[in-house]
Amino acid sequence: MSIQRIDTVKRRSEVVIHDNTIYIGGQVADNTSGDIGAQTSAILANIDRLLAQAGSDRKQLLSVRILLADIADYAGMNAVWDEWIPLGYAPTRACTLQQLINPGWRLEIIAIAAKPRPARKKPDHA
Amino acid sequence: MSIQRIDTVKRRSEVVIHDNTIYIGGQVADNTSGDIGAQTSAILANIDRLLAQAGSDRKQLLSVRILLADIADYAGMNAVWDEWIPLGYAPTRACTLQQLINPGWRLEIIAIAAKPRPARKKPDHA
Amino acid sequence: MSIQRIDTVKRRSEVVIHDNTIYIGGQVADNTSGDIGAQTSAILANIDRLLAQAGSDRKQLLSVRILLADIADYAGMNAVWDEWIPLGYAPTRACTLQQLINPGWRLEIIAIAAKPRPARKKPDHA
Repeated sequence: MSIQRIDTVKRRSEVVIHDNTIYIGGQVADNTSGDIGAQTSAILANIDRLLAQAGSDRKQLLSVRILLADIADYAGMNAVWDEWIPLGYAPTRACTLQQLINPGWRLEIIAIAAKPRPARKKPDHA
Repeated sequence: MSIQRIDTVKRRSEVVIHDNTIYIGGQVADNTSGDIGAQTSAILANIDRLLAQAGSDRKQLLSVRILLADIADYAGMNAVWDEWIPLGYAPTRACTLQQLINPGWRLEIIAIAAKPRPARKKPDHA
Repeated sequence: MSIQRIDTVKRRSEVVIHDNTIYIGGQVADNTSGDIGAQTSAILANIDRLLAQAGSDRKQLLSVRILLADIADYAGMNAVWDEWIPLGYAPTRACTLQQLINPGWRLEIIAIAAKPRPARKKPDHA
């Protein structure tokens, strides 16, 4: 199986797919003036969009890494996350405090998800 | 193949299994009063238990990420690790210093492991 | 499929391969006196060598995690990276600032790559 890439520029791809596993690179908010709620929502919307482009969705998340700039934002991040992740579909998670490249970013999220296999077509006479 | 989850609460799963790959979320010590030896042992015991629930074991570890709060604990963490990992079965590893969410945690460990395929059953007449 | 390990010592393996996925542990420069350009080049040369030992190459990278000790080195790291990664083959990436175990290390890189499947042999009469 070959590798598929989405939104590839010179330096990075937003998504790389291999063997039914989807790797999503570090996602950040475009609008750095937003508070933790706004930035978390923007990032999760990015992830929804990238998963859709990859033929998947948030119920297929396997592992999520949350890099948070300020411990004071922990509750605000989780409030948005808990609303977003469907009950019973939570991925594994690890969240640590981290200095991010752009000081305007309040968090960055990296994810791995599954790509569902297409349903097997039934033969015409079935 | 569908996704299997272990110890899933609203916010996270402790383990997610997909395509013979086992993702283990960030593990920390329940008892934050323990020193680095106690906390490392508690985390590795958690990982043993989660791997067993997933049908695997420590010899199947592929990749381990160690997030250490204090460089002074590096030798103490490694002493427990070196005792725990069977000779010849060490996974890839990366260890960096990191501010963790709970200041009582001295380290946090994230892991990826393989789920061994069940041995193929021999036919009865074999 | 069994697990293959490369450069395994008691504590860690440099590479672990499972199901066509190659995990590369945290790579650092041996020569800590080098500047960001020299250390980045040394690490990427290590990754080239490890990928070759695993039967793969830099075009098969899926996900790269860059741990940078000092924001002042961000441009210098990227200059070497941008030169190294072939156009159109960029993996997903996340780069954050991080205190590394050895204060002489300016960066550390962790990677996941695909192991290409051997081309299917054509029958002799093809």
